[in-house]
Amino acid sequence: MAIMNTQLGTWLLLDHALTHNFDVEIVTQYSVTERHRYTYADMTKRSFQLMNALDDLELAKGSRVGTLAWNNYRHLECYFAVPCTELILHTLNARLSPEDLAFIINDADDEVIFTEPELLDSLEKIAQLIPSVKLVIVMGDDSVLPETSALNVKSYESLIRSQPSTYRYREIEENTPAGLCYTSGTTGQPKGAMYTHRSTYLHAMACGSAAGMSIGPSDAVLPVVPMFHANAWGMVYAAVSVGAKLVFAYPHLHPESFVKLLQEEEVTVTGGVPTVWIQIADELHRTKTKLPHLREIVSGGSQPPKPLIARYRDEFGISIVQAWGMTETSPLASTARPKHHLRHLPKDQLLDEVLSQGGIPLPGVRVALRDDQGDEVPFDGSSMGNLYVKGAWVVDSYFKGRSPESFKNDGYFATGDVAIGNGRGYFIIADRTKDLVKSGGEWISSVAMEGAIMGMEQVAEAAVVAMADEKWQERPVACIVLKPDANVTLEEVRDHLRSHGFQKWQLPDRLEIISAVPRTSVGKFDKKALRSQISN
Amino acid sequence: MAIMNTQLGTWLLLDHALTHNFDVEIVTQYSVTERHRYTYADMTKRSFQLMNALDDLELAKGSRVGTLAWNNYRHLECYFAVPCTELILHTLNARLSPEDLAFIINDADDEVIFTEPELLDSLEKIAQLIPSVKLVIVMGDDSVLPETSALNVKSYESLIRSQPSTYRYREIEENTPAGLCYTSGTTGQPKGAMYTHRSTYLHAMACGSAAGMSIGPSDAVLPVVPMFHANAWGMVYAAVSVGAKLVFAYPHLHPESFVKLLQEEEVTVTGGVPTVWIQIADELHRTKTKLPHLREIVSGGSQPPKPLIARYRDEFGISIVQAWGMTETSPLASTARPKHHLRHLPKDQLLDEVLSQGGIPLPGVRVALRDDQGDEVPFDGSSMGNLYVKGAWVVDSYFKGRSPESFKNDGYFATGDVAIGNGRGYFIIADRTKDLVKSGGEWISSVAMEGAIMGMEQVAEAAVVAMADEKWQERPVACIVLKPDANVTLEEVRDHLRSHGFQKWQLPDRLEIISAVPRTSVGKFDKKALRSQISN
Repeated sequence: MAIMNTQLGTWLLLDHALTHNFDVEIVTQYSVTERHRYTYADMTKRSFQLMNALDDLELAKGSRVGTLAWNNYRHLECYFAVPCTELILHTLNARLSPEDLAFIINDADDEVIFTEPELLDSLEKIAQLIPSVKLVIVMGDDSVLPETSALNVKSYESLIRSQPSTYRYREIEENTPAGLCYTSGTTGQPKGAMYTHRSTYLHAMACGSAAGMSIGPSDAVLPVVPMFHANAWGMVYAAVSVGAKLVFAYPHLHPESFVKLLQEEEVTVTGGVPTVWIQIADELHRTKTKLPHLREIVSGGSQPPKPLIARYRDEFGISIVQAWGMTETSPLASTARPKHHLRHLPKDQLLDEVLSQGGIPLPGVRVALRDDQGDEVPFDGSSMGNLYVKGAWVVDSYFKGRSPESFKNDGYFATGDVAIGNGRGYFIIADRTKDLVKSGGEWISSVAMEGAIMGMEQVAEAAVVAMADEKWQERPVACIVLKPDANVTLEEVRDHLRSHGFQKWQLPDRLEIISAVPRTSVGKFDKKALRSQISN
Repeated sequence: MAIMNTQLGTWLLLDHALTHNFDVEIVTQYSVTERHRYTYADMTKRSFQLMNALDDLELAKGSRVGTLAWNNYRHLECYFAVPCTELILHTLNARLSPEDLAFIINDADDEVIFTEPELLDSLEKIAQLIPSVKLVIVMGDDSVLPETSALNVKSYESLIRSQPSTYRYREIEENTPAGLCYTSGTTGQPKGAMYTHRSTYLHAMACGSAAGMSIGPSDAVLPVVPMFHANAWGMVYAAVSVGAKLVFAYPHLHPESFVKLLQEEEVTVTGGVPTVWIQIADELHRTKTKLPHLREIVSGGSQPPKPLIARYRDEFGISIVQAWGMTETSPLASTARPKHHLRHLPKDQLLDEVLSQGGIPLPGVRVALRDDQGDEVPFDGSSMGNLYVKGAWVVDSYFKGRSPESFKNDGYFATGDVAIGNGRGYFIIADRTKDLVKSGGEWISSVAMEGAIMGMEQVAEAAVVAMADEKWQERPVACIVLKPDANVTLEEVRDHLRSHGFQKWQLPDRLEIISAVPRTSVGKFDKKALRSQISN
């Protein structure tokens, strides 16, 4: 050996919390009036207490420990204590239906689950369906426990209170599993993606890199993306590894108090799905709030509409950076940052050719576009191809050895997305394969059309779905949520699209005004539900 | 396995150069009038040609290929082609004496050496002493070859010209050696530090992180630090991995044309030793040049004087970020960046407590302070301790299995530096152990005293060395290089130090005015030479 044998993993990410970054703050906003604050030193000591408590439970190595929890400091302690004791952190989506929750808990064989007082009810309802769960830890002190329960419940604070606040650094082989996260399951059953200690470290480094989310010691990071959603895109592990301040917002927070939180905690980087930023933009506009510290908003999960990126740029002076990834890719795989020589492009061209793209992969991840025959598709700005991905933090199968066809492509994972590469080296997701509109042998990207329609003044949100057509096989239907007191006609939509470069044969010949776009548990457009809704 | 098996290494760093970053520029300034430009696509294709040429040489896997070269695009091609063909890139310091050069080439058993036309002479002089070298490649076309040579010489362009410009991605086991760099040898014989593919990738990611040098796609990076000096601190590999523009400056460039280069190429990040920035500051001042694109100067190798950091901050609006590391640590181990809550400190306090510190280690590296008995020394702002380091890109021995005592400390490397930790979690190098002044049983840090003396208006440079003293064992001597037409007395120096917090017993009682501080081949103060100079 020439280099010291170092096992990559969560211990390495936590390594400087107590020794160098002890004085950095972690803030959790629980409600408009309640903001919990403590330091990295407190966090580390309490994580050590939790590690000692977990050791006392004597679970077998590699046992799954679930969290059904919001973004807050106790959940953060679980993020470290569980993998650092060689258990597997299984983050459960708090917005799942009871049936899906039971399915996933059983599939993962969770033995312990950490949950919030207000989410305990979801577990009580399925108590009989999840026999593997021996213990449920409720985030709070004994006062949050119910009088009776169908589960074996204990409070978080009573679990850790009498434990020592020191713990010996443990060397864990880097390919040991560390975290488990289920796909949202828009196609078939949810499937578990297992992250290792090594992939968790590598992903955190990529996330903190200037090509990723650029998270350093001078940042205050507010992940709006839930900690149950693919590890909050890696923002949490990246922040702790470099000693960035962390700010957590409990869900159901009003735009007003969310903006106040951004402002008062001097947040520099935040990240979440596009819909959040639409609401926040209106609030910033209404209150004329300035956020001079906010350097960057990372937007992921689905494509942010161009007008939204332009609005933040022009009205608030804030960059929206699009990131792309999937549960299977840890998730951060690419970001759309301008190359040095593209910084001076006219601003709308920059928006079109760079900022609205899916991006360029991070070093360590590779993407490829291929046609249905498996042949390489060129990055020429118009050819669509199936998107494949591989890399150092991409899973090679699903939990329990499930390895469907999507993993059998010379080491690549078939994402199920269709993408286009542009002449500047960036790629953009055109659609989920199943959402592409196949009209007369040609393909129409619903994502591009939605983006264009959302640029209309009258439109709050838009989704485009394919409906069967006898002559053309499929035709696009525009489903629109109007702004208050606004109205729009099919002809106006068609005119708008024509003026934005769409061909006549691509234009929708049906318009549906809807009250809301149905969404999946992770906030993506649920097109299956939408198609069934408008076909009734 | 849960995660795809991916071997970390130089192939992964080069992976997007052709597919995504083909249009990014690489610029080499050879002289005031000659600036070579080409793209990442050109670089990759020529690197592939060089890989094919290296394969044709049929060297055994792991053979050492030396480069005795300045910073330029051909050297960059070697940076990838050599390790990507499973050979070891051995960067030779172009400022070494012929004796040291011969020693190192022999110790490494270099079989091929790439060199510049103007450096060929150094090799000709030792041709009889380096029998392992079968071939010397001169950077240029056939016109740069000498008429006669004691070596087997060939021109770079003729070597690659007829080779195909494609090459198949090669999977290399990540613990395979990739690069070899010798320590500068201020203590004893130079020793080889061997980097692996894995450590090279991990170090590049750390270098590109916002906690490191924050190198992303929007940057233009100019490494002033030579590519023969610990891989240009990782700046080159980090830049290529994310598609940053690269700008190389040939040495002996006048401050005037160097500043022009920074300005015209819109450089955003640069890095080099403090002395460079002293010269450049005077040039910026003289010409009233603004560098609005230059976000950050990384300063390493030795501590930048505080007045220099303050001058860049106040006069030019540019941040100097101090980085610390050694050849044995790849080299980047820590940076001194303000934590979020320290950004608002009064500027001089920020300078004292953060910016002038050695920093906080990167995630993946750990430091420890210990006394001579091996007991932990606290980070209390005054206790000095021996600095130990370990981590994922720190070597565990020297080339050829040499493993001196410095590697035998529970997995830590003893740096030979003495450091102090401050109450905010940052550490600072107080001295090389052997440069500490031991007076009456107490320690005096020469580095801190030099920094303070360099704050005097009359002083261009200052070095403090210990001289033997009968009564006190050792006493500090202040050696000062004056600014033109300036003068200074011992009493003025003592008064200045007293007003900057030094104790009476620490003050030097001897002053030497010298014309220049002698330097080692990597530009550090050569205190051994200085001590012998002033004792004569």
